[in-house]
Order: sequence, then structure tokens, then C-alpha cells
Amino acid sequence: MNTFGNLFRITTWGESHGPAVGAVVDGCPPRLPLDLADIQVELDRRRPGQSDIVTPRKEEDRVEILSGTFEGRTTGAPISMLVRNADQRPGAYDEMKDKFRPSHADYTYQTKYGIRDHRGGGRSSARETVGRVAAGAIARKILALGGQAQHGAPVEIRAFLTQVHDIAMPAEALVAFPTLAEVEATAVRCPHPATAQRMIERIKSVRSEGDSVGGVIECRVRGVPAGLGEPVFDRLEAELAKAMLSLPATKGFELGSGFAGARLRGSEHNDRFVSREGQVRTETNRSGGTQGGISNGEEIVFRVAFKPTATILRPQQTVDVHGAETELIGRGRHDPCVVPRAVPIVEAMTALVLVDHWMRQIGQNGSFRFE
Amino acid sequence: MNTFGNLFRITTWGESHGPAVGAVVDGCPPRLPLDLADIQVELDRRRPGQSDIVTPRKEEDRVEILSGTFEGRTTGAPISMLVRNADQRPGAYDEMKDKFRPSHADYTYQTKYGIRDHRGGGRSSARETVGRVAAGAIARKILALGGQAQHGAPVEIRAFLTQVHDIAMPAEALVAFPTLAEVEATAVRCPHPATAQRMIERIKSVRSEGDSVGGVIECRVRGVPAGLGEPVFDRLEAELAKAMLSLPATKGFELGSGFAGARLRGSEHNDRFVSREGQVRTETNRSGGTQGGISNGEEIVFRVAFKPTATILRPQQTVDVHGAETELIGRGRHDPCVVPRAVPIVEAMTALVLVDHWMRQIGQNGSFRFE
Amino acid sequence: MNTFGNLFRITTWGESHGPAVGAVVDGCPPRLPLDLADIQVELDRRRPGQSDIVTPRKEEDRVEILSGTFEGRTTGAPISMLVRNADQRPGAYDEMKDKFRPSHADYTYQTKYGIRDHRGGGRSSARETVGRVAAGAIARKILALGGQAQHGAPVEIRAFLTQVHDIAMPAEALVAFPTLAEVEATAVRCPHPATAQRMIERIKSVRSEGDSVGGVIECRVRGVPAGLGEPVFDRLEAELAKAMLSLPATKGFELGSGFAGARLRGSEHNDRFVSREGQVRTETNRSGGTQGGISNGEEIVFRVAFKPTATILRPQQTVDVHGAETELIGRGRHDPCVVPRAVPIVEAMTALVLVDHWMRQIGQNGSFRFE
Amino acid sequence: MNTFGNLFRITTWGESHGPAVGAVVDGCPPRLPLDLADIQVELDRRRPGQSDIVTPRKEEDRVEILSGTFEGRTTGAPISMLVRNADQRPGAYDEMKDKFRPSHADYTYQTKYGIRDHRGGGRSSARETVGRVAAGAIARKILALGGQAQHGAPVEIRAFLTQVHDIAMPAEALVAFPTLAEVEATAVRCPHPATAQRMIERIKSVRSEGDSVGGVIECRVRGVPAGLGEPVFDRLEAELAKAMLSLPATKGFELGSGFAGARLRGSEHNDRFVSREGQVRTETNRSGGTQGGISNGEEIVFRVAFKPTATILRPQQTVDVHGAETELIGRGRHDPCVVPRAVPIVEAMTALVLVDHWMRQIGQNGSFRFE
Repeated sequence: MNTFGNLFRITTWGESHGPAVGAVVDGCPPRLPLDLADIQVELDRRRPGQSDIVTPRKEEDRVEILSGTFEGRTTGAPISMLVRNADQRPGAYDEMKDKFRPSHADYTYQTKYGIRDHRGGGRSSARETVGRVAAGAIARKILALGGQAQHGAPVEIRAFLTQVHDIAMPAEALVAFPTLAEVEATAVRCPHPATAQRMIERIKSVRSEGDSVGGVIECRVRGVPAGLGEPVFDRLEAELAKAMLSLPATKGFELGSGFAGARLRGSEHNDRFVSREGQVRTETNRSGGTQGGISNGEEIVFRVAFKPTATILRPQQTVDVHGAETELIGRGRHDPCVVPRAVPIVEAMTALVLVDHWMRQIGQNGSFRFE
Repeated sequence: MNTFGNLFRITTWGESHGPAVGAVVDGCPPRLPLDLADIQVELDRRRPGQSDIVTPRKEEDRVEILSGTFEGRTTGAPISMLVRNADQRPGAYDEMKDKFRPSHADYTYQTKYGIRDHRGGGRSSARETVGRVAAGAIARKILALGGQAQHGAPVEIRAFLTQVHDIAMPAEALVAFPTLAEVEATAVRCPHPATAQRMIERIKSVRSEGDSVGGVIECRVRGVPAGLGEPVFDRLEAELAKAMLSLPATKGFELGSGFAGARLRGSEHNDRFVSREGQVRTETNRSGGTQGGISNGEEIVFRVAFKPTATILRPQQTVDVHGAETELIGRGRHDPCVVPRAVPIVEAMTALVLVDHWMRQIGQNGSFRFE
Repeated sequence: MNTFGNLFRITTWGESHGPAVGAVVDGCPPRLPLDLADIQVELDRRRPGQSDIVTPRKEEDRVEILSGTFEGRTTGAPISMLVRNADQRPGAYDEMKDKFRPSHADYTYQTKYGIRDHRGGGRSSARETVGRVAAGAIARKILALGGQAQHGAPVEIRAFLTQVHDIAMPAEALVAFPTLAEVEATAVRCPHPATAQRMIERIKSVRSEGDSVGGVIECRVRGVPAGLGEPVFDRLEAELAKAMLSLPATKGFELGSGFAGARLRGSEHNDRFVSREGQVRTETNRSGGTQGGISNGEEIVFRVAFKPTATILRPQQTVDVHGAETELIGRGRHDPCVVPRAVPIVEAMTALVLVDHWMRQIGQNGSFRFE
Repeated sequence: MNTFGNLFRITTWGESHGPAVGAVVDGCPPRLPLDLADIQVELDRRRPGQSDIVTPRKEEDRVEILSGTFEGRTTGAPISMLVRNADQRPGAYDEMKDKFRPSHADYTYQTKYGIRDHRGGGRSSARETVGRVAAGAIARKILALGGQAQHGAPVEIRAFLTQVHDIAMPAEALVAFPTLAEVEATAVRCPHPATAQRMIERIKSVRSEGDSVGGVIECRVRGVPAGLGEPVFDRLEAELAKAMLSLPATKGFELGSGFAGARLRGSEHNDRFVSREGQVRTETNRSGGTQGGISNGEEIVFRVAFKPTATILRPQQTVDVHGAETELIGRGRHDPCVVPRAVPIVEAMTALVLVDHWMRQIGQNGSFRFE
């Protein structure tokens, strides 16, 4: 359904071509300093029209906070946020009213619900993620300030593109934790400039052919204390996997060594424990930051695979709502590659998972209070 | 925590070296014919000692049903199942009391809980999955009978090994839906006999070196009606991803085209809709059976990556509970490759996800009744 | 927290003196005809300023629907509703900034959250129930249309006042299921005109003394099919009790015979089963419509006790935020008796409980579809 | 369904005449000292055959702990507890197989599930509460030790009978917090000896006539810190109301002033705040320990109404499973008044509610650890 999380819980709502999209955040700890800019900065990273390789849909995506704050701080009451939809072109979707776009949600929504807002994909539009990003911005602030207060260091979440189509960052470029500036330096959000350049060219070339491409995002988190995750079913990686596969266009998730780890022997894969500055640490991090479903204090490292955008500007064979075979020519304004704009969304979902587990550890109000 | 599912809900309990392991199934539809053999058959596929490539721990794993059935049928009340632990050798774990096994859950459990049943891994042991398999057996029966009654065909779930270490099934062998007999024909549960033979040899060779290997399981499901899955957060693939990453030793999940799909163009990746026997179908299945998070009536196809078993019979560098660096030599009886025994576990978790979503569609008691 | 329900789930948000209040409804079955008037009619029954015995706060309470409908029908996507706050007088609450109103939530909110929006009670204001009533209006429509389609009769929910202060309806007036017109005929929503008249006089008299009074609401539901309720913890009466005690100012709940039932013998209390028109019915209804936590097809009958409004216009002894004893003179615009306006709120919460359990029986999409 | 609670979660299972009854407790904080005696002492208070006014069913109700503890302490893993059923007389229920007992759950279970274990009421039997009491015993220990460690005083829960049939404790006897010894001094668990004696006589007299009576339990809790309860839906009193109405035979719940509070004016009902030993306290406690759904640090005081036992040893008119009218003569061994044995059950449910909310405040592992 449309609620995610347990102690820190978000509910998103809204369709691509309805009046607005938004989210309600419930369970936010009280007294957190929060203003519009905290949220707007993340929405700006997500919004259309940021660069020449994304959809030209013009959306300012200005967020309003309708509840849950008082004199610049959260109160513990639910935080309702709303972003009006502005640049809508419902007419561009007339053809989709009766025809199912291949590999899109048109057919399954029609079948499941017996009704469908076909304009811009309705609820299945990636525009739904506006609410996730707004809520994630709050979660990130809690993790930053809360991590600092509790553990002496903010929890930092950094996602970035490692692959577009068959263009991938070189392995040696994947060692360091990238800075935000490095990630934001290019429109594709790949911190390796040479690779980024090739990715941009590939996206432009594919777009010029009316086609689309997929890619891979890596996400790293540092500053996570050991102990987050709730075996046996709510392991931290299980929650992250669910969060990622709940995003549109995702096809895979892997943590640490991932699928490549299946090709290793135990003697190669195991992360030796060492004692470093009085702390138990691991020498390598093939585990990706969790063991037995619980964070171990190392960097959390995972990757998410995105398929190429389903809507392409080429004729495709399909069927219509009456079951007759037909041809569809995609229209509307679409990203030839959604992956760069998915970076803040992946970060938002990561923040939501982590803050929920962090609050489970320390409690909602009792043991920690923002000053 | 230790409960999974919403309408069809299981709670598992038990440690490797406690008196027993078990599960409570809540929300099972009433009047389902159920006897011990339905459950035992799946437990027998999971239990240790089935073949010469798995752990020699001797466990009969006889299940008792303590509640929820009457005269051979379920009553709608919770079904409590219990399996006594028999072959325990706690002494084999004395060394682990104070030393953390690399890439195992020892350190994170100790850190999170401040206490740890070190014998056999305690709650983090794969023995915990006994309860999942028992519950999954009930879910499978509901899907088989219910699918037949509602849609004219049982829902069939078939998992199998496609890879052990670097030995993988050839792509052409992956086309057909394997029979249960094909899967069960070899100890590794790979339906391609030549590959299976090589896998078995590799496992034996690795074991003789005191080492371990990982592998990949593919799971396919046919007979799933279109319409299962609850956007935006409880997409069917999100729920499957969580279910799989909640299993011990898993490092990745991918659906349909998965990570390879990121290397394709939209024009290559999209599954064309066609009309077949009056039904909307797709010509290819790169989507893996869901679109927009909802099943589309095609086969559900996903893969799960397993890392090599952490416990190996070689000396490893680690630290002890006091933070001092030390050396550990693994003991106890372990599978050199857990993946073959994980096959029924993957199937069980798949069944649990599907039955929960199926019941959400048709209701718990009102619209369907076992005759 | 701020979400209620499982399959039909509402999340409310908003403070008395924030920009707006609202609710998100998740899990609404698709294709339900829904327009603003369906919701507005219930909000109009709840809103301030309806009569001369309620608060003169002027709120039109015009609802906006921001998502979840398409061409006049629900789509299965979450329905976001918003009502702007209009007539705010924050200055009237300046004194409450530092002083705790006796028997109000000021002190407990301050203690729990360490921060408090003191204006109008903030989140603890009964204004929060706007979202409940809006969501309840949707639930009522489902029950009316769905009940008709599934069982041949709408589910009808009728609440009304049986008592204000020590003025109570005579027992013989409690036999019939009152019509909506009878309930709405007077400002106190008591269907017995003579009693209503006395209640109104008492409320006016008490108000003129700057004081307040409590009362009792009875709620009856007819058309509920047998079989709703989920033992052992989610019994229908348990869910109703929680729903009612979640309302501001409630102090008690009783079903059927209630507290008076404790004074009876089993031979007096038991409801004999009889066969009526081929159906199993009970001759009496001391059970109040449920047995063993499951509806039995009879009228559901329960009562809710409301305490007198805490805010009175008289000097009261209290303490301030520094712990010093002081005196407070209540100001602001308050109902001298909240109970008449609570009638649609009690009905809304009842509808929310019933629709959630009804959907659990018949499923969310599979077995029933609005035409 | 059969799970209660969020962070501290119990799942109960088992039927009156099945092999066993039990519960799984999930989310118990680690390192809590726990042995069988902690649980057995509460089961002994609940079990049949304690005195000459309760059912003579002979059950020792010996509890086994199957998981979740290690060397005398909890580990954070789920705690599975089991009690074998011993003294079963299924033959005594043969007549109920086809006839519905008036005001019992026979008819509604049959209608809802289409199948019913008629022996002893199956799942609807009060025997199901064995699991609640076992789980509650753990919750009580947490509250006692945790309250001491966090707030300097144990949380103490004391329930007792105030009324049987029309025999009620005098108001003046209700002032002090009764000791456990006072409550346990008589078989009816009424701390006022003279009233207790009259209650016992009434129960014996009613039993001799083959009849039954109801009663009222009051429950008080002291030592609860201010701040527990989660507005707006999970108010502390809402959770308590649900917990109580989830018990068999309950018909009502009231907190503090309750239904009598509806007869008061605000000026009479409001609890003045005073400053006592540097703490904000209230002079009176008509609120019953919560304001705005959050505990205020005063005693929590509520009452629960129980109807007379439905099964009586007199002929009653009813219908059979075919809808034909018939006569039923109750057999089996039943309590003529269930209320005395309900005292430890009410306490257990209270403990479960409180510990869940307390853990929400302080977190599951992070901010508090049993030494």
C-alpha cells in the first residue's frame, strides 16, 4: 500500500496529472529544526528540467508544509507536505487511454483496479516519488543531527551512478566515499568525470534515436552505528531491498559482494575482524555493512539496477483495452534515462529505512531529544 | 522482527541449540485440508543429512501440529507447529563463545543485544528457517488448491540452482519450467544434469579443502493471476526482495532481466503485448512477471545470490569479545554450500508472499471457501 | 500514531491553528462513485457554528480532494483530502502558552514531546477529527453501496445522544432504530424531542455559567452481515472500543448490555437463538450484535461516555510550565457540550472499523467490484 | 487476528481441547532475567481449580519455555511458551456439536469459518488466555525492573473485583491502592473482606441454581511515567480499551470518571494541577491517569464489565446447525462467575499495553539495558 515504515512512517499520495502530490510523515521525533529549505534542496535534485538530459517537463516542485511544525521545529505531530502539479499536458496521453504501453503499468493497473488514470501514468508515474524525497529529506536531517548527537558523527548517505547502459565506472574509482560535490558535478551524477562524460554522450545519442537506456546506482552510507536491523524478517538488507524494489523501474538489488559474491570461496569472501582504535572493525567489506541482518558499523554499500525507461518514442506493437493488437507511438516528455534523477530517490528511501531502525533502537521520545 | 506477512502471517521462533524450533501461522483460510505429510515433505527437502554434500547433522525434523486444525482441516485459528531439535553438539561451539566468526552474525548479535547464544549460531542459525518451510508448505497448499478453484490452475513454485561458484547452467537450459523431478534428481537441485554433476564435484573439492562456495538460485512461479501486488510500497517484487534478503547468506535479488537489463535499450527490453487465446499476454518476459509492481499473469522469474558459507574449517584471523585479535578455527558441522538446501526455503518464502497478496485480493473468508 | 485501520487505512494530520487539516485514505476499493458532496455533507454535520449551542468558531470546512479519483470514481490510489483552517484567533490562546489547562492535553503533550503548539490545543484539538469525518464519509458510502450489492441492504450507522449531564432519554424511546431526520431534528441530535428540549436548555444554562457538561452517545448499526471481527485480539467490539476511546473527551465504551449486564444472571442475559425467515437470529440483543468478537447479524449497539469539555470560562487553579502554581481563566471559543457535534464523528469511526473488517472478508479487489 | 502489540508483540495459539496452548513473545528486551517461576506464578493465579467457586477442570498449566532465553536471561530472540492441555473431556461437548449455545461464540464461528472445533469452545474458549497471561508475566517483569531502573520505582499493576452481580465494594474502600495480599486473600479477589464474603456466597448460591453471574474489575497502575500513549489513534486509553474488550465476556470499559463522568460539569470534573515535591501533579484523578491520550504520571484507573458466563446448566431454547429450533442443556465444567479468574488476565493485558508503549519511548535496545 502507500505507507512505508513503522516508527517513522510515511504515506505518499498523488498522481502525475492530479492537482498535487504529497506525503505525510508520522513519528518524526519532536524538536527537530526543520524549514522548507531542508526539503526543497532534495526536491530540486529530483525535479524535472534540471539539465539537458532529463525530461523537459517544467515543474518547480515547491513544497508546502501544512502541519507538524511550530516555530521552526517539529512537534511530534504528523508532517503533511504538498507539492502542486504545474506543467501538465494530459492531451499528450490520449493515445494511452486505450492502448497499453509495453512494459509499463497500464495493463496491470487496469486489470487490478478496473479503472485507470491514464494521464501521465497516474499513480504509477515516477512523480509519486516527490513525496518520498520530501519525507526522506526529513529522515536525512534526523540522521545527520541525531548521528552527530548520539555517535559523534552524522549518518551520511551518498548514491551515485556507476553504470549507464554498458558504460561503467572503473573499479579503482569505486574505493573512496564520493563527496556530494563530486556526485553533483555532472548531470548524470557519476563521480568519475571521464565516465560521466561518456554516459552523457550515450544518453544523448540514445535519446536522438527515440530510445532509452538503463543503469546502476550504488549507494553508500557511513556513520551508521552497529546494531541496526531486526532479525529474522526485518534484516537491514531486507528492508533496503524492499525499499529499492518499491521504486519504479528497478530490477535488482545487491549488497556488498552481491551476485559476484556467489563466485567466491568462503576463504576469499569472509571479512576478517580486526581491532582498530579500540573498535572491532572488518579489514574488508564484502558483507556490505551488515552481518546477520544487523549493521556492523562498516559502510553500508549496495547497488540497484534500473531498466531502461519503458516509454520510448518509437512505434511499438501492443494491444488495446479491448484485447486487439495495435501499434503505439510513445509521446509525452520522458527521461531517456531515469537513473540520474533516481539518485536522490535512492538516498531518500535509504534514509527512511535507516531512521526507522535507528528510532527503534533509541526510542521515539524518551532517550534522545533535539536541543 | 519475527513476524512476516499481513493477512497470512507467520511468526517463527527457536534457536539452533534450544529445545525446538517452530512457527505460528495466523490467517490461514478455514477448511483447508491439511495433514502432517503436507508439511513434512517440505521439511524433508530442507533437513540436514539428505545427501553427501550437505551437513551431516542428523535431524529428522518431525513436525507436530499443536493447534488450528480439526478433523483434518484448518479452522481459521492460528496453526502452531513445532520441531524438536535432536542432534546438538554444543561443545563444538565452545571456541565461538569468545571469538567472533568472520562474516557471521556473532559480532552484530553481541553488539545489538549484549548477550548471545553462541551455540550453533543461536537465532542466527539457518535452523530458524525450519519454521519458514513449515509455514510455506501451508501457503503452497493454499496456492495449489485455491489457484485451481479460482483460476483453473494451481500456482506452482519451482526454485533450482543455476550457479555454484563459477559453474552455471547454460542459458538454453533455462527456457522451460523445470519439473520437480528434474530439480530433485540431483543433490544440488540443478535441473541440468551435466551442470549438476560439475557442481557436485566442485562442492566436494571445496569441502575437502575446508572451504565453502556460494551460488545462485532461480525461482519461477506459474499460474499467478494478474493483479497481485500493492503499489506503491508493497509492490510484488519489493515483497519478494524483502523475503529473499531476509534469508541467511543472501547478497542479491533480481527480477526478470535484473542487472543485465540495465545494459539494454528500451526498444530491446520492452515486452510487447500480444493477444493470445483471448488473453493479453507478453511476447517476452524481461519484466519477470510484474509491471508497476503488480503481477501481469506471466511467469514470475527471479534470482537470489548466496554468498559462500561463513563458517569454514580453516584458521581465520578475528577478534574476541574483549576486542583482542586472535585466530579461530571453525568447527561444527556445516554445509560447504548452503544453496541446495536453500531451494525449498526460497520456495517457501515465495509462497508466503504470494498467498498474502492473493488473500488480500479475494478476502480471508468471504469470497472463497475450500470445499 | 496517526494511522488507523489495516486494509482500509486512514492517516490524519493537522493542527487547530495550522494552515489546514486533512486525511489520506489508503485501500479504498476502486470504482466507487465519489464526489465532494459525499464528504461535505458529513463535514457540515461536524463543523462549528451549526447552531446556537455550539462553538461560534466560523469554519466552512470546504473539503478538497487532491488525489485518488478519476472521472468521479475512486481508482484504488490513496485519496488525499484537505480542509483549510479559516477562523483562527491565536491570540486568544496566549495565556495557555505558559499555563496548563486542567484536564486538557497541554501538560502531557509538553512532557512527552518537549514542545507544544499551544494555539487552540494544536494537534490535541478536536479539529483533528475533520480528517476522520472526511474519511468516514467514504467508508460509509462503501458500506451503503457494498452492503446493498453484497447482502441486499445497505449498512446503516446511526448515532445519537441519549444523555446530557443527568438528562437521559427514557428507556422506552430507545427501542426503534431512529431515522436520520429524527436525529438531525434538534441541535443536540437526540431523537426524543422532549428530552432534546431539556438537553438544549441545560446546555444553555450551563454555558451561561461559563461551565460545561458531558453526555452519552448511543450508536446503532444495522445491515452488518454475520462474520465480521477477527478473534482473538481484533474482536469487533475491541476495535470499536479502541476507535471510540481514540476520540477526544471519551471516558467509556460499552456494548449491548454493557456495565448493566454485570448485574444480570446468565439465564437473564443470554440471547436465545430463534429461526426467523430461515435465518438464525436472536430473540433479544443483550450481546449488542457480536458474540465471541464476531458480528452475529443483529444490530450492533454500543454507547460512548464523554466527559464535560475541559476548557471552561471560569478561573481554575493550575501550574505553569515552570511548575509554579497559578490561576487560569479559560478563553477561546468552545462548545459547552461537545457531544452533539461528536455524533458524526462516532459514526465516522464506526464506519472505518466496519469497512476495514468487511474488506478483510471479501478482499480488496478480487471478489467485488463497484459497477 | 492473534497478534497483539507492535514493539512488544505477542502471538497466542491453541484451543481448549487441542494438544496445547501457548504464546510467542517477540521484541522482548535482551538480558532480562527470566525463569519459569516468573511465568508460573501468574499462570497459577489464572488456572482452574484454585478454589471451590471456580471450574473444577484440573489443569496444572505447567509452562515450558522453548526459545529466547540463554543462561537465565532473555536474548532478544522470540520467546516461545507452551502449556499442555491435560484434563479434557471432549465427550461433554457432544451436544454442542450441532447446537449453538446462546450468547456463546458457536454460531458466529460456524458462520465466519464454516467449520468449528466445538470441543470446549475451541479457540473461543477462555483457555486461550493462558498465552496472554504467560506473555503478560514477562511484560510485568520488564515494567517492574525497567521502571525501577529508569524512574526509581517499579510499575505496579493491581486488578481486583469491585462488583459481582449487584454486590459492590463500598466507595470508601476504593481509595487506597490494594496490596497483592489483600487481593489474593479471598477466592473472589476483592480486597474488601466483607464484600468478598458476600460475593462468594452469591456465586455459590447462583451456581447451585445452575446459573451464572457477571461482575466488574477495577485495575490500577502506579509508577507509570508521564508520556506514554501515541495520539491520535493509539491513545493509551484506546489501547487499554481494545485490550480489555479483546477478552472473552467483556461488555464495557471505562477510565477514571467513566460513564459517571458524563453526569458532571467541567468545573466538577477537571483535575486541578498542583505542584507537589517539584512535580506537576493533579489534585484529583477523574482523568484516570491520562490526558489527551498520554499518561500524566498519576495512577491509571479503569474498570471492565464482564457479563455472566454464557454456559449455564439449565435448559435453554436455541437452534441447531440446520436452523431448527431445539433445546440445549449446558454441560461441561464452567465457572459460575469468570470474573475472579479474569483478574490476572486483566493485569496481563494491561502490562502488555504498557510495556509496548514504554519501549516505544525508550527504544528496544539502545537506551536501556538490563544489567
